[in-house]
Amino acid sequence: MSDSVLVDQFRHIATASLAGVMLKMGLSNQWVRGPMPLKADFPRVAGSAFTMRFIPARENVSGAFGKKLPVNRDAVEVMEAGAIAIADARGTTDAATFGDIVVARMVRRGVAGIVTDGAVRDRNGLLATGMPIWTAGVTAPPPAAHLVLAAWQEPIGCGGVAVFPGDIIVADADGVVVVPLGVAAQVAGKGAEQERLDAWQMEQIGRGVALPELKPLPGAKS
Amino acid sequence: MSDSVLVDQFRHIATASLAGVMLKMGLSNQWVRGPMPLKADFPRVAGSAFTMRFIPARENVSGAFGKKLPVNRDAVEVMEAGAIAIADARGTTDAATFGDIVVARMVRRGVAGIVTDGAVRDRNGLLATGMPIWTAGVTAPPPAAHLVLAAWQEPIGCGGVAVFPGDIIVADADGVVVVPLGVAAQVAGKGAEQERLDAWQMEQIGRGVALPELKPLPGAKS
Amino acid sequence: MSDSVLVDQFRHIATASLAGVMLKMGLSNQWVRGPMPLKADFPRVAGSAFTMRFIPARENVSGAFGKKLPVNRDAVEVMEAGAIAIADARGTTDAATFGDIVVARMVRRGVAGIVTDGAVRDRNGLLATGMPIWTAGVTAPPPAAHLVLAAWQEPIGCGGVAVFPGDIIVADADGVVVVPLGVAAQVAGKGAEQERLDAWQMEQIGRGVALPELKPLPGAKS
Amino acid sequence: MSDSVLVDQFRHIATASLAGVMLKMGLSNQWVRGPMPLKADFPRVAGSAFTMRFIPARENVSGAFGKKLPVNRDAVEVMEAGAIAIADARGTTDAATFGDIVVARMVRRGVAGIVTDGAVRDRNGLLATGMPIWTAGVTAPPPAAHLVLAAWQEPIGCGGVAVFPGDIIVADADGVVVVPLGVAAQVAGKGAEQERLDAWQMEQIGRGVALPELKPLPGAKS
Amino acid sequence: MSDSVLVDQFRHIATASLAGVMLKMGLSNQWVRGPMPLKADFPRVAGSAFTMRFIPARENVSGAFGKKLPVNRDAVEVMEAGAIAIADARGTTDAATFGDIVVARMVRRGVAGIVTDGAVRDRNGLLATGMPIWTAGVTAPPPAAHLVLAAWQEPIGCGGVAVFPGDIIVADADGVVVVPLGVAAQVAGKGAEQERLDAWQMEQIGRGVALPELKPLPGAKS
Amino acid sequence: MSDSVLVDQFRHIATASLAGVMLKMGLSNQWVRGPMPLKADFPRVAGSAFTMRFIPARENVSGAFGKKLPVNRDAVEVMEAGAIAIADARGTTDAATFGDIVVARMVRRGVAGIVTDGAVRDRNGLLATGMPIWTAGVTAPPPAAHLVLAAWQEPIGCGGVAVFPGDIIVADADGVVVVPLGVAAQVAGKGAEQERLDAWQMEQIGRGVALPELKPLPGAKS
Repeated sequence: MSDSVLVDQFRHIATASLAGVMLKMGLSNQWVRGPMPLKADFPRVAGSAFTMRFIPARENVSGAFGKKLPVNRDAVEVMEAGAIAIADARGTTDAATFGDIVVARMVRRGVAGIVTDGAVRDRNGLLATGMPIWTAGVTAPPPAAHLVLAAWQEPIGCGGVAVFPGDIIVADADGVVVVPLGVAAQVAGKGAEQERLDAWQMEQIGRGVALPELKPLPGAKS
Repeated sequence: MSDSVLVDQFRHIATASLAGVMLKMGLSNQWVRGPMPLKADFPRVAGSAFTMRFIPARENVSGAFGKKLPVNRDAVEVMEAGAIAIADARGTTDAATFGDIVVARMVRRGVAGIVTDGAVRDRNGLLATGMPIWTAGVTAPPPAAHLVLAAWQEPIGCGGVAVFPGDIIVADADGVVVVPLGVAAQVAGKGAEQERLDAWQMEQIGRGVALPELKPLPGAKS
Repeated sequence: MSDSVLVDQFRHIATASLAGVMLKMGLSNQWVRGPMPLKADFPRVAGSAFTMRFIPARENVSGAFGKKLPVNRDAVEVMEAGAIAIADARGTTDAATFGDIVVARMVRRGVAGIVTDGAVRDRNGLLATGMPIWTAGVTAPPPAAHLVLAAWQEPIGCGGVAVFPGDIIVADADGVVVVPLGVAAQVAGKGAEQERLDAWQMEQIGRGVALPELKPLPGAKS
Repeated sequence: MSDSVLVDQFRHIATASLAGVMLKMGLSNQWVRGPMPLKADFPRVAGSAFTMRFIPARENVSGAFGKKLPVNRDAVEVMEAGAIAIADARGTTDAATFGDIVVARMVRRGVAGIVTDGAVRDRNGLLATGMPIWTAGVTAPPPAAHLVLAAWQEPIGCGGVAVFPGDIIVADADGVVVVPLGVAAQVAGKGAEQERLDAWQMEQIGRGVALPELKPLPGAKS
Repeated sequence: MSDSVLVDQFRHIATASLAGVMLKMGLSNQWVRGPMPLKADFPRVAGSAFTMRFIPARENVSGAFGKKLPVNRDAVEVMEAGAIAIADARGTTDAATFGDIVVARMVRRGVAGIVTDGAVRDRNGLLATGMPIWTAGVTAPPPAAHLVLAAWQEPIGCGGVAVFPGDIIVADADGVVVVPLGVAAQVAGKGAEQERLDAWQMEQIGRGVALPELKPLPGAKS
Repeated sequence: MSDSVLVDQFRHIATASLAGVMLKMGLSNQWVRGPMPLKADFPRVAGSAFTMRFIPARENVSGAFGKKLPVNRDAVEVMEAGAIAIADARGTTDAATFGDIVVARMVRRGVAGIVTDGAVRDRNGLLATGMPIWTAGVTAPPPAAHLVLAAWQEPIGCGGVAVFPGDIIVADADGVVVVPLGVAAQVAGKGAEQERLDAWQMEQIGRGVALPELKPLPGAKS
């Protein structure tokens, strides 16, 4: 199965279903604490993780840095179309990880979505770009007020969850889940089955069936 | 006064008024910290508290439990029409206390509302059920990720407030208050009077009266 | 430049731009942590700070207070038209700093906006007054449940930021910034230039220019 | 194996070893967040859990309670010798769960230790009783300031961990772990083996062996 | 009763007893959250509150301040012998409210103790001065890193409690309580009685009396 | 000046002095929030930073990891004598970043000290090794319960401060400060001068000089 076919499957599976099936597989910590959609009606997005790692800021006093650090603008130009940029901002919400100018460029490059456990700024400008964004806060100060970009495409933590470059990120109205790349096909299969089960149970409830009497999905593996 | 008449009275009294009159009666801790309406325009709801008590999860390793614990699905089938399910989730927001399938059944049983100091999942599915819900968060993982239902209809704490089965729960745009059953009729009376006073003061302000010159409610006690 | 002309300039400069230019001037802590707009589409407001300082409540037991403390209603009647009331509520969100009756009177007096690092109550009533409000929470209990007004027009802290009476407060969709009065004209000038730069960069991005190739604002200093 | 023999075994196994072996068995959440020893050199204690469940306080206004709630003093008189009282205080540290008078009586009844995820008061008086205590804080106010005892010997949460009556509680300088009764014998066996392995590794390190070359415990399973 | 006689009485009453008797009088919020003794064996101290009010720092950029603010060194020279300096540091623990040089001078002026809901620095130097200190943390940075002294001898909040200049502050191993000046004599009397009751109950427990059978203090009111 | 001479200078300068002089140089964020000495009387330590970066744990389900991650035991064997290991544990205190076996080996390798913004376990075993340790907590569970080592000798954040490999770490009774390598010689010089000033001021206070009259250090550059 090609990557793009796989990613497309995830666009049809709720994060709630994915969190449930991964929990049953023994992966109990895949839902990202903090980020929620910047507006209510973004579509569900799925894509390959482009990780960004921020550390606390140090003032740019002469001699304070051994070498120049990269900035957001460098990272954006190496992102691939369809990627989801996911930032380890360490929960910092009094400085932005992204603002509207950088995000407008990310839209041009085809980035599929943004996730940060920190904050974004230029709320109205960001919404105008159309980029789907999951964030833990909205703020006014630029990154430099409290954050420095240290690296990209390294393993990170985001909202208490390990994220490796290339993991599948899925985000919807219930927040963001991380699907490890090596189990993504398996999770997609189980997730789709869970969606069918949920629909079947909802249909029964609509007919007045009590919860203890809900029938299993016809033809489902146990 | 019958219970349903009493509950109906509370549907016409703001939680802000109820919190104010209970404070004057010496009850200073009746507003629940955390839960807010899942969407902006739910009507005010009032009902008798059906308490649910969750504890932290323990993995279901062989031998780890002395006896089987109940689950949400068992509790739902004993809830009565008009009740408000109020859950002590200990502020856990990285696992849900309720999801859309269980809530769809609660609608069928006539449950009047849901309050949790934890989180719910399936946000869009929940809104589709029409159930008014007050929650401290939205999440993707199922309860089992971090929570186990220990009991129902016991005294609980929810958002820092004591709740006893049968207390009157009132919830609106300002959140959730708990009215002890034994003082509910008294609180309803004082609350209705407070509503009339507020309307009278608003009317005077509309006429340009300054705050120190606001006249008391004509005919009001004190 | 008259004060009202200056305030009017700030209505056209985003808080994100103001936080950025003040950071470059060496003022790194001017964005207020906590308060966000009570509804999404308030216009940007700017005005002179009328500071209010709350302390934790003490019950009114006989002898517990040496002298009578002021209340919100006293403070409101000395606010001037165009002021922004900004309250140091110490992050208390289980009691309100403002409710709808007091705010209705503030509208009558021409107060331009309200900022609190605590909470407000009567959400629907507040929205009905039309007053733009930035708050860290919504609650039901009145101030007396946890707060006492100690003084007004003193230096305060609000959301981790020092605020002096007369500072310029600017609030929009990204929250609230405090502009020290003594540097306000300088900040307004740099802020307006920042707005022109951002527009120029956005225009270039719309034409497909990559971030590292963004040209500086024609004719800009530096 | 008798219960007292089992409990005695746990007095010789560090909580760090117990947390490690339970994690390998799939029990990842058995260390209690918050409680630490009230003084540095308490011996390790182990015993059967006597659970106590507190909820937030409600003022004793006439009519506010349907029936009288129990108090600490009632619970203490049903505790058995060798038990460890473990209290779900919901992290409340501005009111005590235990004070010196009640604890002095618990010493007389042979209670082996106390654990609370809240606070204790009368620090010096408590130390004078000789009772080993693990607590998340020290405070001055009595329980009634913020807490009410709701029940005992029910399943509780303490510091984020499920505790069932009769579980084995072990507490030492690294805090408190909960060993589910049904797996206690198995955990004791693996824990003792872990202690032997640790001693063997320490002995090798003392001889200068590098970490990657540490030899496994002679005769150990895997 | 002279003030010094009254203060001396408080040196013999535990903060736990004071918190208990004030709660019964209707004063439920007099224990200060946060500050604990900097070392274990300070004697109990009592004295008249000298309040200090800090606000968040603003960098000293040209024009940023309308007038010069006072500093710790100014405040210290107006403190009277026997006073307890109590600082509203807003819970800031990453900058000190006091360091050893200022405190050495406070010792010389006869200040009886220090309370801060923030932090102190120069831990070893502070202990060398002999000053009894209750603090919420230890830190290295000076006040200016995050705090500015705004005023002294104003009503403040400290650790969630209202403090007025002249209130009686009592601090011991269980932390710090604030006794409103107007009720101090009454509280001292009830507190002394509570101490006698506690001693009598302890004596009975030493003789093996069970908690429900504890006899009231002979001759005590109620 | 050789590195070891420089490091030796820092052993005679308090972290409080270093935080103060760096603040004056424009470096306002160099004190690490959280870590405090594991026991009261460790000597001050100084050394070159060996950074360790932890991310949240992911269960080792088949396929969940693309490649094997390193572990503590690998990192320890590349640490140099005199280094200070400083771990970015993201504030996680319910799993250890270090335990006694690994630390015993670090002592053998000549590591000068350990700093973590997370927790350590085996408290008594750690103290027996003699290693000076600054930690934000003590815990029982091993790292794997919540943490995975992602990398070492990368730029990290620790307790809200940026740390680059090779920065000078100084730790004493007031906690931990980070001195950027490029300004270390300058900071050491200013720090030594601050120590002399403090001693001179203390000597004057001992003679009864009031704070506003303290004389500057004779011969000091103002």
